[in-house]
Amino acid sequence: MPASYAYLGPEGTFTEVALRTLPEAATRELVPMVSVPAALDAVRSGEAEAAFVPIENSVEGGITTTLDELVAGEPLMIYREVLLSITFALLVRPGTKLSEIKTVTAHPAAQPQVRNWLKANLPDAVWESAASNADGARLVQEGRYDAAFAGEFAAARYGLEALETGIHDAENAQTRFVLVGRPARPAAPTGADKTSVVLWQRDDHPGGLRDLLGEFAVRGINLMLLQSRPTGAGIGNYCFCIDAEGHISDRRVAEALMGLKRICLQVRFLGSYPRADIEPDAVRAPLPGTSDDEFASAADWVARCQDGRF
Amino acid sequence: MPASYAYLGPEGTFTEVALRTLPEAATRELVPMVSVPAALDAVRSGEAEAAFVPIENSVEGGITTTLDELVAGEPLMIYREVLLSITFALLVRPGTKLSEIKTVTAHPAAQPQVRNWLKANLPDAVWESAASNADGARLVQEGRYDAAFAGEFAAARYGLEALETGIHDAENAQTRFVLVGRPARPAAPTGADKTSVVLWQRDDHPGGLRDLLGEFAVRGINLMLLQSRPTGAGIGNYCFCIDAEGHISDRRVAEALMGLKRICLQVRFLGSYPRADIEPDAVRAPLPGTSDDEFASAADWVARCQDGRF
Repeated sequence: MPASYAYLGPEGTFTEVALRTLPEAATRELVPMVSVPAALDAVRSGEAEAAFVPIENSVEGGITTTLDELVAGEPLMIYREVLLSITFALLVRPGTKLSEIKTVTAHPAAQPQVRNWLKANLPDAVWESAASNADGARLVQEGRYDAAFAGEFAAARYGLEALETGIHDAENAQTRFVLVGRPARPAAPTGADKTSVVLWQRDDHPGGLRDLLGEFAVRGINLMLLQSRPTGAGIGNYCFCIDAEGHISDRRVAEALMGLKRICLQVRFLGSYPRADIEPDAVRAPLPGTSDDEFASAADWVARCQDGRF
Repeated sequence: MPASYAYLGPEGTFTEVALRTLPEAATRELVPMVSVPAALDAVRSGEAEAAFVPIENSVEGGITTTLDELVAGEPLMIYREVLLSITFALLVRPGTKLSEIKTVTAHPAAQPQVRNWLKANLPDAVWESAASNADGARLVQEGRYDAAFAGEFAAARYGLEALETGIHDAENAQTRFVLVGRPARPAAPTGADKTSVVLWQRDDHPGGLRDLLGEFAVRGINLMLLQSRPTGAGIGNYCFCIDAEGHISDRRVAEALMGLKRICLQVRFLGSYPRADIEPDAVRAPLPGTSDDEFASAADWVARCQDGRF
């Protein structure tokens, strides 16, 4: 039996399409799961080698179910990310005309991306939420709704046709997916990498979060995501999911993480992995004074000072 | 006709219960709306004097629909907040036994708060999402599901009985609601106030967010919420919804907002209003050097210096 990747199912959703863009997916059995927690639990239990789940969306922001699963429970690590542009097709039973559509369905996350299109083209259609976009397509096939918003690729699977394609209210609507596995050594740096961590503050005081971010800033590290998530200890109690540019084997990143480890109540390392948004040769150079060489020669200099040999 | 408050309906949800704790609600007509955008649009159009909507939850974090509505569109302002402890009752048709329950329903937001209870007490029950907790109760009344999770107060309205009360996975589960109106002069400071703003960074560079937070930190202002929301310009493009301690008429807060106005691309003021979590006499004193008197005497001193009279 080949090693398997669990993913947020059902089949025929954007998640599956994104997963199939990973070369390593071709050699694995791909197993759809009913939910993000179920996909990640399959990894924790050893049932699956890895899980592939959405984590961020340019319209909705961080996918909180995924972030909360990575923040709590047995530690997991991110090994890959995939960016997928999201545009919807309006899927109908063959022959259905736009004027005949009284009911439409899709996953609730699709709604903000098709709202304007609906208002302009089907102002009187009644919206009902589906468990997933693929499930919405299935319900159209069964005759329960007149039309579903889903990826165009879902049409063939459910015997539907795309009455309209390329529907997206927000330009550049993208979803970011991650491949998550049990903790192990991160892949080697590619030159265009990202490091994800979760930070818990030691206490709540003016400037507390600013001080945490300072560990990145003083080392010239740019942040790509900062998403607060409730700790469960009541309103106003948050931990912070942070994506930073760079790899834990970069000295500036390693030193920032050491600084955070010293000042935070808790730090959870979620992995260093290749960025999907940029090629290594397009990554900007480190800020002056923050390259590995400069870190190394500064460490040498301090060592010489400690010996009185400056 | 009395002035009306729109609120996130339907009747019989936690939102209505929270709204009725406000003394001013007693003299208004309370109008349930189908969604948060609909409630806020009623204010923007002048149809309603104010809207009452959930904005933050200790289990789920910021309510993104509400935040996104306040971030974009015609500006609105927050005038009041209410904190409500959330515990669920399991509502059934009178006489139903726990062992007879095969299907349960509630709003999806209820699920993380009842998940453990369900696993322990009804491990085989099938969950179906409802449009609201009150709607779930109605569907139980109609016989479509066996049980609904909702506020205990919803039982009477739908002819149901509470088989179990006080269900909550997370201790101290609370939801924060806000009363939102058209922009006007904020209420006078009470001594325990909160100021809400939305910040857009001028550009993306290492330390950018740290610098924004520094405007609060150097003036001893504690933050109570920092929630990133997508700007719609693609993955990684965020603005920041921030709640800070204090009132815009406090000199430290006014000066922090001036600093942000200078360094941000855009700042949206969402209001200064009384905190619901603490009484004025329990608020800690400003950090040394950040009281109104100290700001005033420091301004005097600089003015004297400018005159050569120090």
